[in-house]
Amino acid sequence: MNQATTKRWPMEDTVAGCVAAGVPGIGLWRDQVDAYGIERTAALVRSAGLAVTTLCRGGFFTADDWRDDNLRAIDEAITLGAPVLVLVSGGLPEGSRDIDGARRRIGDAIGELVPHARAAGVQLAIEPLHPMFASDRCAVVTLGNALDIAEEHPAEVVGVAVDTYHIWWDDQVWAQLARAGAGGRIACFQVADWITPLPAGVLLGRGLPGVGCVELRRFREAVDAAGYAGPIEVEVFHEDVWSRPGGEVLSETLQRYLEHVV
Amino acid sequence: MNQATTKRWPMEDTVAGCVAAGVPGIGLWRDQVDAYGIERTAALVRSAGLAVTTLCRGGFFTADDWRDDNLRAIDEAITLGAPVLVLVSGGLPEGSRDIDGARRRIGDAIGELVPHARAAGVQLAIEPLHPMFASDRCAVVTLGNALDIAEEHPAEVVGVAVDTYHIWWDDQVWAQLARAGAGGRIACFQVADWITPLPAGVLLGRGLPGVGCVELRRFREAVDAAGYAGPIEVEVFHEDVWSRPGGEVLSETLQRYLEHVV
Repeated sequence: MNQATTKRWPMEDTVAGCVAAGVPGIGLWRDQVDAYGIERTAALVRSAGLAVTTLCRGGFFTADDWRDDNLRAIDEAITLGAPVLVLVSGGLPEGSRDIDGARRRIGDAIGELVPHARAAGVQLAIEPLHPMFASDRCAVVTLGNALDIAEEHPAEVVGVAVDTYHIWWDDQVWAQLARAGAGGRIACFQVADWITPLPAGVLLGRGLPGVGCVELRRFREAVDAAGYAGPIEVEVFHEDVWSRPGGEVLSETLQRYLEHVV
Repeated sequence: MNQATTKRWPMEDTVAGCVAAGVPGIGLWRDQVDAYGIERTAALVRSAGLAVTTLCRGGFFTADDWRDDNLRAIDEAITLGAPVLVLVSGGLPEGSRDIDGARRRIGDAIGELVPHARAAGVQLAIEPLHPMFASDRCAVVTLGNALDIAEEHPAEVVGVAVDTYHIWWDDQVWAQLARAGAGGRIACFQVADWITPLPAGVLLGRGLPGVGCVELRRFREAVDAAGYAGPIEVEVFHEDVWSRPGGEVLSETLQRYLEHVV
């Protein structure tokens, strides 16, 4: 389970709910962890026996404080026991039209984080976001481009985040998943479905598994075939999902996961 | 000028406005042509000395009547003197998740139109739409995929539509533009800018040239370098643009075109 799917569920309820439902791990979000307290979160999940699968997220290399913020995010991942820090890399700098330059700067910034991530034993996961976010959230919008950047560094330090919502449309995606697997670059696998119409701002338009048009099982099989044996997170952003009770969403998510992903 | 930019401007005003402004050609839309009358439109543009650069649009191969509708669209292009029919190919069939299958069916459908298009001397232009339209409007979302389909047929019968709004985010776009040019596949070149936030439904989110983040001049230079010497259309869908007087929009479009594209 990724915590974003039940965004308004309090931390303790989320952890208890996951344990009660037999969910073995959770992807945590830094804003939620920060609100609850990082040491407190680390103790909570540890005592619950819940694995932290990913920490979301670092990146946004367009921000003035990107270096400090990302070094801090790596430290937070250590504290929480998260093996993977997901990076949403940021879009175009204010007023810029230079997307190639933005991609180069993202690569350079990740390079600067590598020594600390390597020392920490935290794998950075470059997440390609859907191209509708290219200008304002993430200039890296294909799995191929994410791999181009990741492959500058050792696989155990820099991988890619495979999120079905962001890459399902890509006619090159199956070849790129095979490439990612062959290089040991799949750092995490997140599942959400594509539904239309998109809401204004397009951020909160994701569907629970099976409500949309993504071939989720085909993705899971492709990721399996590529040699990925790590956790699978369901990560859905949608106002209608967030406004429901967390336990109810978790229960439906598990049912849909079994029906459409496994 | 593409007629969609001044969608609510009456046909006669649009044609007179283009002529007065020294615009040499116009991209027409079938719904507008149909409302004004096809023979009447053909006579109007002919007597005005205005070239018809494209007819928008055929495609939507998921519709039950796709064959008849597209054959009719080719005939309309002949009547109007439009050398190019732009194809927006349609998304996933209702209830389907098979995007590879959708792409195959699009290729098959285009193949069925080729004899009539060839006989008519009308070039079909496969338009890759932005991936945010992949499920509901067009399963072809990259220039590379559009070329894969087009290259099954002679270039003078099947080409691609290059629209900056739909493909600007693609890290492979420059290589694919060169490929398109080398094969003589660029059937038309349309310009619009990318702005955020996107509105609900995301259809009417385009900006006039220069208001957004697309490297429009770089695209124009790349299309030039690829050997394309045909018309350039400005095609913008936005409620704020449509709600303004057509003459004012045309005037601003021309100014922005000279500043950001030429």
